[in-house]
Amino acid sequence: MRVDRRAEITPLKLDLGNASGRMNMYNKEDIRDRMVRTVDTVRRTNPMVGSITNTVTINFVANAQLAVGGSAAMVYLPDEAVFLANAGGATYVNVGTLLPIYEQTLPRMVKALHEAGRPWVLDPVAIGIGSLRTDLLRQFKAYKPGVIRGNASEILALAGLWGLDGGTDGSNVRGVDSTDPVIGAKAAAVSLAKWTGGAVAVTGRTDLVTDGSVAAFSHGGSHFMRRITGSGCSLGGVAAVYATAASPFIAALTAVAAFNLAASRAESKADGPGSFQVAFIDELYKAAAEDIANNPFDIEEV
Amino acid sequence: MRVDRRAEITPLKLDLGNASGRMNMYNKEDIRDRMVRTVDTVRRTNPMVGSITNTVTINFVANAQLAVGGSAAMVYLPDEAVFLANAGGATYVNVGTLLPIYEQTLPRMVKALHEAGRPWVLDPVAIGIGSLRTDLLRQFKAYKPGVIRGNASEILALAGLWGLDGGTDGSNVRGVDSTDPVIGAKAAAVSLAKWTGGAVAVTGRTDLVTDGSVAAFSHGGSHFMRRITGSGCSLGGVAAVYATAASPFIAALTAVAAFNLAASRAESKADGPGSFQVAFIDELYKAAAEDIANNPFDIEEV
Amino acid sequence: MRVDRRAEITPLKLDLGNASGRMNMYNKEDIRDRMVRTVDTVRRTNPMVGSITNTVTINFVANAQLAVGGSAAMVYLPDEAVFLANAGGATYVNVGTLLPIYEQTLPRMVKALHEAGRPWVLDPVAIGIGSLRTDLLRQFKAYKPGVIRGNASEILALAGLWGLDGGTDGSNVRGVDSTDPVIGAKAAAVSLAKWTGGAVAVTGRTDLVTDGSVAAFSHGGSHFMRRITGSGCSLGGVAAVYATAASPFIAALTAVAAFNLAASRAESKADGPGSFQVAFIDELYKAAAEDIANNPFDIEEV
Repeated sequence: MRVDRRAEITPLKLDLGNASGRMNMYNKEDIRDRMVRTVDTVRRTNPMVGSITNTVTINFVANAQLAVGGSAAMVYLPDEAVFLANAGGATYVNVGTLLPIYEQTLPRMVKALHEAGRPWVLDPVAIGIGSLRTDLLRQFKAYKPGVIRGNASEILALAGLWGLDGGTDGSNVRGVDSTDPVIGAKAAAVSLAKWTGGAVAVTGRTDLVTDGSVAAFSHGGSHFMRRITGSGCSLGGVAAVYATAASPFIAALTAVAAFNLAASRAESKADGPGSFQVAFIDELYKAAAEDIANNPFDIEEV
Repeated sequence: MRVDRRAEITPLKLDLGNASGRMNMYNKEDIRDRMVRTVDTVRRTNPMVGSITNTVTINFVANAQLAVGGSAAMVYLPDEAVFLANAGGATYVNVGTLLPIYEQTLPRMVKALHEAGRPWVLDPVAIGIGSLRTDLLRQFKAYKPGVIRGNASEILALAGLWGLDGGTDGSNVRGVDSTDPVIGAKAAAVSLAKWTGGAVAVTGRTDLVTDGSVAAFSHGGSHFMRRITGSGCSLGGVAAVYATAASPFIAALTAVAAFNLAASRAESKADGPGSFQVAFIDELYKAAAEDIANNPFDIEEV
Repeated sequence: MRVDRRAEITPLKLDLGNASGRMNMYNKEDIRDRMVRTVDTVRRTNPMVGSITNTVTINFVANAQLAVGGSAAMVYLPDEAVFLANAGGATYVNVGTLLPIYEQTLPRMVKALHEAGRPWVLDPVAIGIGSLRTDLLRQFKAYKPGVIRGNASEILALAGLWGLDGGTDGSNVRGVDSTDPVIGAKAAAVSLAKWTGGAVAVTGRTDLVTDGSVAAFSHGGSHFMRRITGSGCSLGGVAAVYATAASPFIAALTAVAAFNLAASRAESKADGPGSFQVAFIDELYKAAAEDIANNPFDIEEV
């Protein structure tokens, strides 16, 4: 089987900066250049990304991944998950609707990802509900996801579960919704990013992406994103697609920017959440790399 | 965790009537006022509703619940289901695509709902197919769902399974479709409502909602509802959202009216079942509370 | 229960040809007449088709089946699957996202289908990934699916797994994508069709349908079919709907032609893959039987 796509993946470590100093590494022009290259590389290489994700939004995740140029593959069984972990350019793990087999599948998959040095994106949906979810999320600490994507309450709770600075005991997660503002999860996000060595994206009105050194705040989006199911899940899935071609920070920021741009454009065409969801996929597909990179964001040291 | 939303839920018992007599309690103006308050309360409070539902239409159910102003959460595992039963304002249970774990999950969940006095909506999809489905539906009799939603064949078969008047032995259910007319299930619906003390909605060309004392017949809808999957499931899911803010009868009637209104409006914009489904979600989102309450219905004592 | 729909199903064997010779049986006018009758019969009889299919595209499969006039029912449990196998006019089996219970469900279901002489459609999605998938697909050889639907890589790999001429060892399947051209799978498709006595559809830029004696090449479609998830799955599901009313070859060719026509029309209305998917369901619903039959195809002996 032709499954090893490592040769096609831009070396992640080399992409992270240069010798001329950290602020230069993270100036906005440099970030935008990297975002453009990420979007274009994905459209050119059609990278395969495996996912274990919830049944509610699995179709939307796959269609979003395809819209940006990726190829989607979803499984449930342990050996299939390990196969995809090694075959895909990156992997998306969403714990939304756990099935009993996940007790075996997820630990084996993330271990394989960690051992192979493959980037993966963790979406700690509904953290705090149920014992298996808690147990799995606790185990994931050792396997360091490249990108963590959550709302503010989920990020606070995950940092708490992992015993990191800025986290909270217990959870303010209400089902799948956040009850905390994005900025309130900044310290937790920074702690998580420092622990993993990757990036954390906290989504909300303004989205925060941090690698533990800098924080980017991405603007745009639409109020309809809260009126459809799967806006967060599909963002995580698309971040995994971009993680096949960029560092975790650039991958997460590119995904967030693409979503904010596409959602803003889709809102202007939508008559409600149904037509918004359709237009959102269209706009994700059509968005020019330069427009994604130029979607407004601020950056600061943390 | 901030999960107890009881304080936000309109006391259901007090909402049911007044001392001035039963017919007054159920006059159409009073019913319409309650429907308006239900729609508005849900839009203002964004109530969380847990669901265990089939994988075919789970996304459509969630998006319909969000479109009317609710928050959706779906799970499979027993302890997660019990958590949601207690955390949500109401719960939706659809037995469409049973998984092995449901043998443990569903009895524990509905027992928790019953013990906590939380309303839940039962959708006895495809009753008659398979031993686990029959076994679960038989067990549910003791836990008295607040709302039962089904097509005529399903309602007849459920009343039969529970040994109630008007039910049939066996089932005319054909997969997920009905082979009986709505009016033919009126006696079974009344029996079921009297048993549960809640309401029953029988959906078809004209929809019937009864609490065992009165029957409302709601008009409107679209022929496209039979050409998309999930029109019944999403109705059940939305009835659960409204059940967080109203009595079972008002919740079911409000959901039916909202669906008939939105479907009728969506049909006028649709070019086929694909665009109908999109427009339907838009119209569900946009429908004014007054328009939902004014969607035509007749009412009679039973 | 009124589940036996055998009386409504056009006898398949009698539909296959006439006594006046094989080439006459397969002349294009005769094929077009059969396609028209197939489309019309399905719209008139609303045949029920059971499916076991993946969770990613299960909703799209059901909506496509409904759009062409069928009725969809999906299950997971063994006894429910056997029930549907006997109750449905045909059955669709897609091994995309295997769950542990499938180890029991699928062998029992396909055995029941084989023993009852009911047509079923096999979609060997992602053949080569995981041990259960391989084991199940190997077992299926004895139960001879009426239609096999796959991309070129999947058809090559299945013929290889079954030890038939034209097959390949291992697999070029990349997740759910093909890395081989359609024409390269022609010999494998012919071998498979000869083994099953049914038909094989290989989908790609031009689609190939063969019954082992002739090969039809169907034209049309849209580049957007590769940018949405479920175009192949929904084709398999629709082929099962048509298989309730026609021979495997005519059923598969009708499904392929309907998809090429609807996709081509949908592309002209679409602004991206989101609106394409919506328009595609609309066009599938609206397509006249004659237009489906007149969608361009070539035919040759093999």
